Amino acid sequence: MTETSHWLTDAEQHAWRSFVRLQDRLLGRLGREMQAESGLSSADYGVLVELTEVPEGRLRVLELARAVEWEKSRMSHHLNRMAKRGLIVREDCPTDARVAFVAVTPAGREALAAAAPRHVEAVRRLFIDPLTPAELAMLAQISNRILEQLEKDCD
Amino acid sequence: MTETSHWLTDAEQHAWRSFVRLQDRLLGRLGREMQAESGLSSADYGVLVELTEVPEGRLRVLELARAVEWEKSRMSHHLNRMAKRGLIVREDCPTDARVAFVAVTPAGREALAAAAPRHVEAVRRLFIDPLTPAELAMLAQISNRILEQLEKDCD
Repeated sequence: MTETSHWLTDAEQHAWRSFVRLQDRLLGRLGREMQAESGLSSADYGVLVELTEVPEGRLRVLELARAVEWEKSRMSHHLNRMAKRGLIVREDCPTDARVAFVAVTPAGREALAAAAPRHVEAVRRLFIDPLTPAELAMLAQISNRILEQLEKDCD
Repeated sequence: MTETSHWLTDAEQHAWRSFVRLQDRLLGRLGREMQAESGLSSADYGVLVELTEVPEGRLRVLELARAVEWEKSRMSHHLNRMAKRGLIVREDCPTDARVAFVAVTPAGREALAAAAPRHVEAVRRLFIDPLTPAELAMLAQISNRILEQLEKDCD
């Protein structure tokens, strides 16, 4: 704690804590519901969504990691677990790790199709319905403003 | 996928994806910065904040778990790791697990005091500064509306 620390005002602190609490509780709840109802984690769901949105259901591992914004080691461990459960297959190139691919299996497509309606219903009930269309648009605008700032700010 | 599924509109999907992306990127970045600069994870930081805000820096484990909204097993594993690093001490009652307490150590207070100014500076730079005061107030209002809905909705 230094004299030059510029602490948050009450209003700033309230907004920050509300946001942190919101993401923690909302995403926690959605994740638990999905796991209980469909046996997929939020991470599984995110990977399956990315894979089923591209032609042939197949992506380079590096592209997938970029899309879901995970670090390489987390991606690799997670894909191994999903492959064991038959949701995806890994297509590794023994001579060049950069050309490793991952593809969704028919079982992976089925698991996503089974999970999606309930997940969408939960997102609607817990996130969309409590807000007016204007608030929803404002939230998207605010989110994108902060995301732009993150892009500009060096990691 | 059933005929009765009520998919999100483009505007709804845009708002939802922006929010998910925001929390993922912003909290990911803040967590990485804190770990690199102070050696604390976001989870460590949250626990230390709760403990230092109460008299004597001491809480029942169950109260702490409620405050940070973690499940019991996650709380227990995390506290064991923090205790090994000397940031907290556990005061377990051998005859009644319900009266287990956890207390912050002087080293835990020091670690938090060292981490806090940089963390607050990062929150200001990445979350507060990109928004107007009106947007910040709107974000708090939106967050609290959804949190109220979560309270009402049975888990």
